[in-house]
Amino acid sequence: MKFRNFKMVGYVIYGLGSFDQLDEILAPQRKGDAPMIFFVDEYFKDKPAFLSRIPLQGKDKIVIIDVTHEPKTTQVDKLRDDLKAAFGEVSGIIGIGGGSVMDLAKAVGLMMTNPGSSADYQGWDLVKVRGVYKMGIPTISGTGAEVSRTCVLTGPTRKLGMNSDFTTFDQIMLDPSLTSSVPANQRFYTAMDCFIHCVESLQGTYLNAFSKSYGEKAQELCEEIFLEKKQWDDDADEKLMMASYAGGMSIAYSQVGVAHAVSYGLAYLLGTKHGIGNCIVFDKLEEFYPDGVKKFKAMVKKHNIEIPQHITKGLTDEQFDTMINVSLGMAPLWENALGKDWQQIMTRERLRKLYEQL
Amino acid sequence: MKFRNFKMVGYVIYGLGSFDQLDEILAPQRKGDAPMIFFVDEYFKDKPAFLSRIPLQGKDKIVIIDVTHEPKTTQVDKLRDDLKAAFGEVSGIIGIGGGSVMDLAKAVGLMMTNPGSSADYQGWDLVKVRGVYKMGIPTISGTGAEVSRTCVLTGPTRKLGMNSDFTTFDQIMLDPSLTSSVPANQRFYTAMDCFIHCVESLQGTYLNAFSKSYGEKAQELCEEIFLEKKQWDDDADEKLMMASYAGGMSIAYSQVGVAHAVSYGLAYLLGTKHGIGNCIVFDKLEEFYPDGVKKFKAMVKKHNIEIPQHITKGLTDEQFDTMINVSLGMAPLWENALGKDWQQIMTRERLRKLYEQL
Repeated sequence: MKFRNFKMVGYVIYGLGSFDQLDEILAPQRKGDAPMIFFVDEYFKDKPAFLSRIPLQGKDKIVIIDVTHEPKTTQVDKLRDDLKAAFGEVSGIIGIGGGSVMDLAKAVGLMMTNPGSSADYQGWDLVKVRGVYKMGIPTISGTGAEVSRTCVLTGPTRKLGMNSDFTTFDQIMLDPSLTSSVPANQRFYTAMDCFIHCVESLQGTYLNAFSKSYGEKAQELCEEIFLEKKQWDDDADEKLMMASYAGGMSIAYSQVGVAHAVSYGLAYLLGTKHGIGNCIVFDKLEEFYPDGVKKFKAMVKKHNIEIPQHITKGLTDEQFDTMINVSLGMAPLWENALGKDWQQIMTRERLRKLYEQL
Repeated sequence: MKFRNFKMVGYVIYGLGSFDQLDEILAPQRKGDAPMIFFVDEYFKDKPAFLSRIPLQGKDKIVIIDVTHEPKTTQVDKLRDDLKAAFGEVSGIIGIGGGSVMDLAKAVGLMMTNPGSSADYQGWDLVKVRGVYKMGIPTISGTGAEVSRTCVLTGPTRKLGMNSDFTTFDQIMLDPSLTSSVPANQRFYTAMDCFIHCVESLQGTYLNAFSKSYGEKAQELCEEIFLEKKQWDDDADEKLMMASYAGGMSIAYSQVGVAHAVSYGLAYLLGTKHGIGNCIVFDKLEEFYPDGVKKFKAMVKKHNIEIPQHITKGLTDEQFDTMINVSLGMAPLWENALGKDWQQIMTRERLRKLYEQL
């Protein structure tokens, strides 16, 4: 297809305190006594006040999700096997947390009905059967995972999402009050995932009015929150949640660019997490995104954020080569950023110099 | 529910020329030899070049829709009866046109599976059964009907939509090239439906960050197109289509205001169409929306639009009373615009004076 036919999430509820409506939203989705399974970010493990607000019924279960590492296909398969062994069938999977928890909720929701290993479905449109009911409740803003049709997984041979129309959530709940206790550093890195995404897509060569309108709004909200606001407040949580949503929607007809392509190399070799990895790289990209990087540096300064430096110091030539190979493998990102002739522009030597600066 | 759980359209395809993908999008929705029915605005009746682009297969049928008057429940029921008599079942209804055609496509799509008359379902959440597959393809921008969960119908006792989650389209196709031949006056009135909606909702007392972000973007796009652009071009068609979509999305958590409340009275008594009716009223609302009306007047001037004047001249007291009764019946609109005490602010006398100015 020339233009992508974009699958939307089924339902959106937005509002400060809308989490209290979870029970009534889930009620019509319950199938007999098959339980609802709540995947909850380990951040909430020791927060009984929050956990007690999850409306458990019958055999419903809370599964605390370890997010030390980004989601793996083995982790997805094990979660699925455990749920199958314990319950046979489930009514649905509700992911409450950051991007990793949401991606796991999507992946396990799909694997409850699709046979084999999740690694079999890493790619585009390989999932053939609808999963169980899936809901995403972000507790940190910026990833856009709430509206995407993918769930990024590290598999035996590659890091790649299960991209399909079945992957998109049936329901998302956007309650900005859930994000109010996120530590400032983590909040910043994740918000910058959205900001950097917008800069890259708006300056890219792939773009149309649909994605542009979403991307511009998301970027404008990020700038208002991080450059103009005097202090963090409910309004900031509300706007950042909308920025994340709009940034996610903008991906429909756009693509990311240099920061993402370079940071995938860091993630692969060093396990650097997505949000902070993008910040580490973007900080050095003045020549590609002069206006965006200037604003980024102003935000970093205003919010007293420490961007890690010298993380590639002491790496071997072989290690640099690994990162370069991974990064140059992301052809669509480079083409979006630099045009058809990107291979002439971003040579291995130039990319090596860039990695050395990080 | 405190916060509305907003049903999204199933799929969105956006792009200049995306209409050429209609055949492949419909293919998986065909059920045996049951036809796809294309409701086409009478504007295209004598445009064979356009009609021949509709990908007819088997028993598929084009039904030219008379849009002289706004949609009626009797019209919906008759279209449904005719289709049932001719085909028994249909695979889907595709509405190609303005807001009236889209509303008819939604209504007939629902009535193919729901018993009785469409008048039985005017209200909120009265539709209990999913309709057939429904798709909306706007050929004029501004109504927002492409994303709404209603279809406004004039019935035996009232003008009211079939508001339900089943009403929302399964698919929308946003191809700005389809709007490029709309006459400038009609385009302006319909675009102002979007602009006025945004002014009313952004200045209203009901609003949250979700609707605000969509409403701001839609208003900004309208201002860019109608105040800044030197001449109409593809970019204007693209942006106006996005403004309409964003304006429609913003209704999720907002409400319209004075112009809509007053123009419903005109529509009821005089049959004034929605787009032009809103313009006639908004033109006189400086005291309620000073900034918005100032911009509106600048757009009117720049585009040489003639806003009808003195349309209520010579009406009887009884006729004024009818309009006033209809208008004051729209309590949520007045409360959104003027707050809880709206009845003290907008007295019958004041509203009569306002109607006399039109």
